[in-house]
Order: sequence, then structure tokens, then C-alpha cells
Amino acid sequence: MLRDQNVVLVESIRRLLRRGATTNLSKIVNKTHAADLSIVFKYMSLGSQRKLFDLIEDIEQKGILFSELEENILLDFVNGMTLDDIVEIMESMPSDDVADFLGKLPQAKADAILEEMHAEGSEEVEDLLRYGDDTAGGIMVPDFISLREDLTAKNAIESMQKEYLDVEMAFYIYVVDENSKLLGVISLRQLVVVKAETPLREFMTTDIFSVRTNTDQEEVAKIVARYDILAVPVVDDNNTLVGIVTVDDVIDIIRLEATEDMLKMAGAGEDFVETQSVLKSTRIRLPWLFASAIGGVLAVFIISHFESSLQKFAYLAAFIPVIMGMGGNIGTQSSTIVVRGLATGRIHAKDLWQVVSKELATGFILGAVYGLFIAVVAQVLFHDSVTSFGFAISVGLAVVCSMSIAALVGSLVPMVFARSNIDPAVATGPFVTTSIDIVSVYLYFVFATKILGL
Amino acid sequence: MLRDQNVVLVESIRRLLRRGATTNLSKIVNKTHAADLSIVFKYMSLGSQRKLFDLIEDIEQKGILFSELEENILLDFVNGMTLDDIVEIMESMPSDDVADFLGKLPQAKADAILEEMHAEGSEEVEDLLRYGDDTAGGIMVPDFISLREDLTAKNAIESMQKEYLDVEMAFYIYVVDENSKLLGVISLRQLVVVKAETPLREFMTTDIFSVRTNTDQEEVAKIVARYDILAVPVVDDNNTLVGIVTVDDVIDIIRLEATEDMLKMAGAGEDFVETQSVLKSTRIRLPWLFASAIGGVLAVFIISHFESSLQKFAYLAAFIPVIMGMGGNIGTQSSTIVVRGLATGRIHAKDLWQVVSKELATGFILGAVYGLFIAVVAQVLFHDSVTSFGFAISVGLAVVCSMSIAALVGSLVPMVFARSNIDPAVATGPFVTTSIDIVSVYLYFVFATKILGL
Repeated sequence: MLRDQNVVLVESIRRLLRRGATTNLSKIVNKTHAADLSIVFKYMSLGSQRKLFDLIEDIEQKGILFSELEENILLDFVNGMTLDDIVEIMESMPSDDVADFLGKLPQAKADAILEEMHAEGSEEVEDLLRYGDDTAGGIMVPDFISLREDLTAKNAIESMQKEYLDVEMAFYIYVVDENSKLLGVISLRQLVVVKAETPLREFMTTDIFSVRTNTDQEEVAKIVARYDILAVPVVDDNNTLVGIVTVDDVIDIIRLEATEDMLKMAGAGEDFVETQSVLKSTRIRLPWLFASAIGGVLAVFIISHFESSLQKFAYLAAFIPVIMGMGGNIGTQSSTIVVRGLATGRIHAKDLWQVVSKELATGFILGAVYGLFIAVVAQVLFHDSVTSFGFAISVGLAVVCSMSIAALVGSLVPMVFARSNIDPAVATGPFVTTSIDIVSVYLYFVFATKILGL
Repeated sequence: MLRDQNVVLVESIRRLLRRGATTNLSKIVNKTHAADLSIVFKYMSLGSQRKLFDLIEDIEQKGILFSELEENILLDFVNGMTLDDIVEIMESMPSDDVADFLGKLPQAKADAILEEMHAEGSEEVEDLLRYGDDTAGGIMVPDFISLREDLTAKNAIESMQKEYLDVEMAFYIYVVDENSKLLGVISLRQLVVVKAETPLREFMTTDIFSVRTNTDQEEVAKIVARYDILAVPVVDDNNTLVGIVTVDDVIDIIRLEATEDMLKMAGAGEDFVETQSVLKSTRIRLPWLFASAIGGVLAVFIISHFESSLQKFAYLAAFIPVIMGMGGNIGTQSSTIVVRGLATGRIHAKDLWQVVSKELATGFILGAVYGLFIAVVAQVLFHDSVTSFGFAISVGLAVVCSMSIAALVGSLVPMVFARSNIDPAVATGPFVTTSIDIVSVYLYFVFATKILGL
């Protein structure tokens, strides 16, 4: 649905641009959400992008557009803008988005913008930049409603009408003591339903989930997802409330983390590269394939070691692909299940042996089934008086071993990594597949030469 | 952090259970969020689970526990409960969770519960069960605040204090006309800051995102994620408001869809199976591996066709693994990037040729780099007067072709599937890898026999 809407939108805008129909363009641009405009920009020349951008009346929409644009489009676009124009838009953006935006710019430009913003008194962003990118501090917004415990519900509504008009996502009111230490939380709806004179302390929830500025963003996302809350307060070492992480940012984190895991498992870096240039994408993927190339060279040595066996019985070579393929595929299944299970909390690192033994058992059963199948194929196609059942047995055994080992290694490596606090997604992909390949091929040749006496 | 807390919790509860310290147990159980208790249950016997469950005082927490428990634990647990007890808990649960829960039970039991609930006048759940599981209708909650456009802000606050006390996630007020048709939306914070006498129609937002009951849940999640909203209203064919989908359910969908995609790509079914039995997990994974087994058998035929070449030059076999491995790995990179890009909206199905040609270019460059590397290895290890440079050239060419084809197929197949509205994640995994393997091995042998004249 979204997709088709965008196609129509892009085409209408193109038509209006060609006709120079500024009034209609302005109408359509200002009616379209900036998140959708960011898609339209992908299909426009820089010149058309500027025309559309200038037509946007609401400066906040310009800010949203900035946060939604893909990095390379954004960089090109910002290049032609004056510092003042950029800063003006920055000031309309939530400070976490500003921090993100600055992170994408070349250092010199980011510094210049920060200096300009500092001169105009916007220190919030600088505060945010102090924290690690992937921590609660790096993704929190410093806009939240915090009120003293002795205020009444009526006082609270009054200060929302005055002081807190520009808080972006206000669904909770945080209750603090005189030193800004976090005491409890009140939802807006509680505020609306209690008697006007009730002091906040009497109806606030004190059993509150909070995180530290240095808590990992993935951890923050897990808490929000798990307890179905809309925002989680961030406190510093003194339990002073310094910001909140809102659910909309958590959604972005959850999607990003899943993308990162998938890319890491495929050995394709960790940031999404499709929208980057061919050369950049090549550079990111090159090193991961190196593991596989080195593994392949090792396999060359192993197989050439068995040259004389191959000369005596050339059909040995015919089963190399199936033995590698079966091991590789079941290994990918196991590591995907474990990595994703760990990420979503369905699997716990402490259950190492339980998880690994289950995978091993599954690998063995599947190995036995397919080992038998492939042994039968070998027997039907290549039996003769010399090999008798020997070749079929070698092939079958190799499949069982390869699949069992693959399931074992594919589950064990990410579990061990998770226990050692290393990202399990990195562990899988090319490295694991390649080592399983080598072991499988080696075992196959050992079995065959022993059993067939080659 | 969460993980360590759970370990401590499980151990404390075990200790208290052993000592029969019911008062302390009750304290700890009622202080712990049901989402955490669901983890504790994993490590407890059925008997202990029942003891803990009986100690929970708040029936809503019992309901949350029911929604959080893993399927197999839940089924065992519910087995020993009376229908009345189950129905009592169901009635405290949001109706979307009840519908989910009933979906997990055996049909006969679910029907019995529904009948009992119907007798007590709970028709909401039956309404939900009418809609497809994966549609907005299937995941919406029918609890929302809808008010007529001519009411004032003051009226609205009053009715929140009376009628709408038990609405679970109330952050928006939906404004409707006399026929319950959706007209606009008001956030709770707007309600608090306007003058008491203002009619809702005057400050409602009319530019509102809504979805139909049959909209796919993935689409709903995209809208919520894209426009940073906390809930999206669901309307029927007459634009009558029938429910809302809240952001907490959207988070679950986003995680689930990412999990499904990863499992499908690995050919490991689509539901998370780790917590299921070895046999069930075997059954799910068996058919996906069949594609790979059949592909392997095809490779057997292809390679055995070149038996005489292998007999003349046995080292040919030594490069089978590296040619398959390089193709397989780059193919996985390409398909992961495309599948994930499509899922997150970074890649659009209409850009087919742009995306595929970029991947092909990347595949060709990487193929050239690694083709050269592996050709050099072949030349150093296996040159003799007969083969001269011929063998190295065959191996290098095979790597370039294999990697280019893998990048092409790995990106083209999911793009074509997405265009035809078939889930691109299904398309990748075992099928693609296996076909790339076969083509690569075939080309390799064709090159080698032609160039070396075998």
C-alpha cells in the first residue's frame, strides 16, 4: 500500500515540476508527511530536491525530512546549504536527531554547526554527544516533564499548559525530589482521572523501570518491549533524571539491531550498504569473503593430499558438493536459530548445554536421514565389484558426520560467544560455514580411503 | 542486566520453595513483573509453577503471565486448570491476547472456553477471531476512547473519568460522527492544554493515519514505525472505527517479522522452534534440506560426467570447495541485503534493475579480486608443462563467473518475488544457494576441460 502510494506521489510531483506548477506543488508537498517526502527525494535530481525543500512551510517537517533522508542524499543536499539555514532547522529538531545528524557530517562541518548552535545557546546537543552512540545517553531526549512530588494534579495540569508545551512525546510525568532524583511516574491518563487536589506522591507509581546513561541501547529496547511501556527514564549515577528514551526510537533500534544481526551473519558488514556506492559496498564485503577464500585454499591442500585416491576412483569428487552443501545448510539453520533466539530472549546464554545438545540431536537425526538417502544414491549409481557397499557407506557416514558437526558448531559457537559477551551474530556466517566445509571434506576423504582401501 | 537479574530471581525462588517460605515467596512473586515470572517458569517443575501461580494476587498479572509464557509451558500448565479458572483469567486479559491464547489451545478446549465466555457475555473475543491472524483486525484491541465531535474538552475529561476508566492504553481520543465514522484524533496532552469549553472538532487533527481490518500486520507496523505514532485506528469498510493497534503490539510484530525472515532465509521454517522438541524441530527443518540434497545429487551427475577429465587431472577436484564456497557466501550477502532492505523499506521493489545491476557489479569486482587470488594459488601449486597457465585460468574464470552469477541470482530472485507479491525471504536460503552451487561447479568443469583439452 505504502509502496504504491509513493509511486503515485513521485509521478505526480515529477509532472508538476515539469509544468512548473508551483502552487499545486506547494500544496502537495505540505500535505505529505516528511517521512514520505524522504522517499520521493530518492527519485529526484538535486535541483528538484531543492525546489521541493524550499516549498516546505513547516520548519519541523524540514527537520523530520533531515532525519529520514538516506545518508548519501542528505550529505549531497546539505553541501549546498548555508550554515545559518542548517542551524535554523537543527533548532527545530529533537536533540537526539540532531546528534544523529551531526554524526553523519564530516567532522569540520559538524564542529562548525555545533559552534554556531552553542553561540545561540543550544547546549542540549553537546550534552548528548558526550554519551556513546549506542547507549541510553546517546539516544535519549532531554525533553520530559518532571515535577516535584508535593505538587497536586491540578498544579501538574497547569504547568503542562505553561512550561511544558513543547515537550514532544508527553505521556508520562516523572516525579522527582528536590534534587531531581527520580521517585516515581504518573501517566497522563492517571492525572486526568484523579481529584484535582491529590498530591502527585499519592498516586504515582514507584515501581519504575529506569536505565543508566551508559546502558546499551539493545538493553533499553528489551526493557521497553518487555514491559510494554512508552518511554523509559534515563538516570545518571546519582539517580538524577537526565532524559527519556521513547518508544518510537526503540522501534528504530529493534529494526536496526535485527538488520545488523542479519548482515553480520551473512558477512556483509553491519550497516546497510545497498544505498551506498558499488565501491563502498565492495570494500565492506571484501574482508568477510577472505575467510571463505582462505578456507577454500585449505580445502585445496586437503583434497590434493588425496590425489592418488582420486586417480583410482574419480567418482569420489562427485560427492564433495553434496557433503559440503548439507553441512553448510544445517549449520546455517542452527546458527540462525541460536543467534535470533539469543537476540529475542527466547534462548538464554546460561542454557548452553541444553540448547547445543538439542541441536546436536536434531543434526544427528537429519544427518542419518539424508546420509541414508545419499548413500542409496551412491550405491545405485556407482557400485561395482571393487567398491561393493564401501563407497555408499563412506558417503553416508560423511553426511551424518558433516551434518552433526555442523549443527554442533553452528549452535555452540554463538552460545559460547554470548556467554563471553561477544556479539554472537559476528561469530557465525563465513567463519563457521568455512570451517564446517573443511572438516566435512577432510572426514569424507579419510572415510573413503580407509573403507575403500584406496 | 535483565539476564543476570533473572538468574538471581530463579535461584531465590528455588531456595524459598525448598524452605516452604510462603510469605516471602508471595512477597517476591507479587513484586515481580509477570513478564519476568514467565522466564522463571521455564526453570520450574509444573508443581512449583502451580504454587507460584496460586500466590499471584492480581488477576491481571495472571493474564499477562499467560500471554508471556512459551507455548509448550502454557499448554502443560493450562491442562490442569478448571474451565472456570481459565475463563476468569481470560476476562481480565485484553481481547487480542485472549484471541492469541485461544489460538494456541486444542480446538475443543478453545471452543469450550469461548462458549463459557459467551455465556457470560464476552463477545469481543469472538469478534476478533473473525479476522485473519496476521491482519490489523486480528491484532487490534477493541478498547479505545471514541467521543463525538460536538463534545467539549471538559466533557471529554469527564467521560474519561467515568466511562473509559478501564481502557488499557489511552493516549489518543478518537473523534467520531453520529455513525461512529472516524473524523479525527486528539492526543491526551492536547486535551489537557486547551480551554475547557473548546469543542473537540475545533482542535482535533483530521489528517489521520488509519488502516482497514484486513490490512496486513506488517503494513500496520510500517505505518506506526514510519510516522512515529503510538496507536493506529482500525476502520471497517464503512470507515467505522472498530479498534486500535497499539505500539506495544507493533514492537512484537517487528521482532516477529524479523525472526520469521531470518528463519525462512536459513530454511528453518518460520516459527521459532528452539523451544520445541527435537522431533518437531527435525520435522520442520527436514523438507528445506531436501532442496539441498536434490541439488547435491544433481552435482553428482554433473561431476561424474567429467570422470575421464578427473582421472587425467585429479587436482581438478581440489578446487570444487573454494568455487562453491565463494559463490555461496557472496550469494548469501546479496540476498540478505536485498531481503532486509525490502523489509525495512530501504530498497523498493520498483528499483529492480538498479539494485540488481549494483549487486552484479559488486559481485563481478569481488569475483575478479578473488578469482585472481585463487588463480595464483592454482598456478603456484599445480603448474606443470602440460597445464601451463591453463589450469589457473580455468579456476580463476570459474570463481569470477560463480561470484557474479551468485550476486545476480541472490539479488534478482528476492526482487522478482517482491514484485510478484511473494515473500522474498522464502525465495532465498537453500534454493538459491543450491542452484548457484550447481551452476558454478558445471561452469568450472566446462572451462577446465575446454581450456586444458581434457
